[in-house]
Amino acid sequence: MRSSVPADPMQVIAELEELRALTADEHGAQRVAFTPTWRKARDWFGAKLADLPVRRHIDAAGNVWVTMEGASKRSLVIGSHLDSVPNGGWLDGCLGVIAGLGILRSIAETYNGKPPFTVKLVDWADEEGARFGRSLFGSSAFAGTHSIAADRARTDRDGITLEEALRANGIDIERIGDAAIEREDIAAYLELHIEQGPVLERLGLPLGVVLGTKGVERYAITFEGQEAHSGSTPMGDRRDALAPAAKLALELRAIAGRHPDAVCTMGSVKTFPGIVTAVVGRCEVALDQRDLDADVLATMLREAQEASERFAAEERCTVKWSRIWSIEPVPFHSDLIELCDEAIRETTATSYRLPSGPLHDAAEVARVGIPTVMMFVQSLRGISHNKIEDTRKEDLVNAIAAFDRLAVKTLAWMESQ
Amino acid sequence: MRSSVPADPMQVIAELEELRALTADEHGAQRVAFTPTWRKARDWFGAKLADLPVRRHIDAAGNVWVTMEGASKRSLVIGSHLDSVPNGGWLDGCLGVIAGLGILRSIAETYNGKPPFTVKLVDWADEEGARFGRSLFGSSAFAGTHSIAADRARTDRDGITLEEALRANGIDIERIGDAAIEREDIAAYLELHIEQGPVLERLGLPLGVVLGTKGVERYAITFEGQEAHSGSTPMGDRRDALAPAAKLALELRAIAGRHPDAVCTMGSVKTFPGIVTAVVGRCEVALDQRDLDADVLATMLREAQEASERFAAEERCTVKWSRIWSIEPVPFHSDLIELCDEAIRETTATSYRLPSGPLHDAAEVARVGIPTVMMFVQSLRGISHNKIEDTRKEDLVNAIAAFDRLAVKTLAWMESQ
Repeated sequence: MRSSVPADPMQVIAELEELRALTADEHGAQRVAFTPTWRKARDWFGAKLADLPVRRHIDAAGNVWVTMEGASKRSLVIGSHLDSVPNGGWLDGCLGVIAGLGILRSIAETYNGKPPFTVKLVDWADEEGARFGRSLFGSSAFAGTHSIAADRARTDRDGITLEEALRANGIDIERIGDAAIEREDIAAYLELHIEQGPVLERLGLPLGVVLGTKGVERYAITFEGQEAHSGSTPMGDRRDALAPAAKLALELRAIAGRHPDAVCTMGSVKTFPGIVTAVVGRCEVALDQRDLDADVLATMLREAQEASERFAAEERCTVKWSRIWSIEPVPFHSDLIELCDEAIRETTATSYRLPSGPLHDAAEVARVGIPTVMMFVQSLRGISHNKIEDTRKEDLVNAIAAFDRLAVKTLAWMESQ
Repeated sequence: MRSSVPADPMQVIAELEELRALTADEHGAQRVAFTPTWRKARDWFGAKLADLPVRRHIDAAGNVWVTMEGASKRSLVIGSHLDSVPNGGWLDGCLGVIAGLGILRSIAETYNGKPPFTVKLVDWADEEGARFGRSLFGSSAFAGTHSIAADRARTDRDGITLEEALRANGIDIERIGDAAIEREDIAAYLELHIEQGPVLERLGLPLGVVLGTKGVERYAITFEGQEAHSGSTPMGDRRDALAPAAKLALELRAIAGRHPDAVCTMGSVKTFPGIVTAVVGRCEVALDQRDLDADVLATMLREAQEASERFAAEERCTVKWSRIWSIEPVPFHSDLIELCDEAIRETTATSYRLPSGPLHDAAEVARVGIPTVMMFVQSLRGISHNKIEDTRKEDLVNAIAAFDRLAVKTLAWMESQ
């Protein structure tokens, strides 16, 4: 391989700012998938490709693919998403796409438009699921893990169905599974993303290697006791459904605490009748458990279930569990993890390996057996999905440089496979 | 005093059933104050007075007074309320009014229409506060503890203001305080009510003497932590506002448990943003504490406040308290408590003294220094404010007989004062 021309971080940052100016208002980014502002972002992105030796096509699920033909059909894919949540940040998703564009430019220059392998850049459709509540839309169609039956009837808050919104964007919901054809000949997938958490900031590190995305077990749990008058019911006669829920909320910290990266969250508590003059008769809580290790996740789920039953019995209540959603852990590829680690160390001296709690399109790609890795860049205050989402300029520069190095290393690794 | 003609319990029960047939539907009693069904109940009650030597008038707050002139203007008042919650029971409130009617009849017969003291029966307006959220409306106007400024703007769920509803019922909100004139010459106040709690049923006793109504401290408590992504935020980095709330919910049992009749209730918990994918950033809870002893109540309030601050600090959250409402404990009159005890023992052999957790019109009467006592009759399963509210027929018979005895004893006691 010839010595590579590095990507231009300052151009990438300038383009991110250009995109922000085009698609954000005073409340933040408004690139919600399948809306006019999202299409505007995609059109802007398409125009950026004019001087590159690439072709652009949209697959059956609305994912945009930018392809630079190489000597071999085997391809390196770089991807992320241009769509945002409403009132979102300026980096979530689009950093990975625009950094990928920078890398496409450097590869085009390095190889004079004809790299040894085909290189593709993908802008996944509707990663956020902000409008219809179905995240990873485009990448799950690509992976074949989509669910047309369940998704067809999803509506936005104006009552428009997902099916109708897709049709208005030229997508036939019956055919989204055809996006699987894009899986052909992919040798590796890389994704750069902001961390959206506080770990790298706390460690004082700009960059980290993502080990994989954590599996998720998400349940609705209902405790039933006996509604009673708060004035006339002695403490000893109560069957207060809030009590086992409160015990479980606290016990979750011990359950997660036995494993280094595990998290358990009770994000919602609802009390019924929920008035100041009544002992709680029914308490509904939502539980979210995540870990990268499937055994750890299964253990935590079992422990939470056992604890809830013990607490319900102690409080003379009953408990029922109902699964909301779950996904298995998706570990990334060990060779690519090593390469990512190297690329970071060569750029900023120190690397760090961490699992991703949030899901990403990379998880759908990795699930179908494509060697995958992600790189995280530090998020200030761990905040995303908010207009104050931010990352230091120097960290972005390092991220783009390290990610560029990772692409070069991955092309070399593909040579060896 | 001549020997008294006893009240007729079976007639009272038959009239309660008649009222139920007239004012309940398949969901329960519908005598919500200031509605047509409530006025129907009052008209029915007015017609029952036709053969009695009484006059009926409505005071400035809408309370109905039925007066049997006696040799002395000093008066014995028996009272309760005909209004109910929506989908209410057949006894809550109206038992006391109809039992009072039975006693008026027995006194009229005993004294041939001219008792030694004036005897009055009062049907308080809107005890429940079901439509506008302001309970004890009529009795608080009588007691001078009403709050026109705060109540004027109260609306029902159709947007009708309390002021408008009062006007439609012939009541001028500016003048409700004039009901205080009814306080003149009252020597004693008696009220019979269902317990609405499980204590007498658990003891296997039909009747109890009420020592007073518990004081209430009612607060909204807000814990503030930091909303965070449930997937990307390590357990150790969280400031989960649910944690101190859960600790407080459990600690309240210890705080109440140090006092025999005290109760503490967290009846409402609200989580924000309240979604499964976010650590709780703000948790709002409602606290209700009650005891008959003002010192105990103050201790419990202080302990709950201190505990909330300790838990907030432990969880790196903040806490704010905001008073919703409070009322001091209202102990009943010691002589009348003794008489009530005697009347019960003479009727059913065993009596029991207990505080009332729920508030009653009797508390407003006692607050202005009128000697007051209440008698409770057992509630099955402690349930009220529900169509399944019930009391055994034989317990009702004993209640009416014992309450009648209490009235006779009270008239004798008035003689001695």
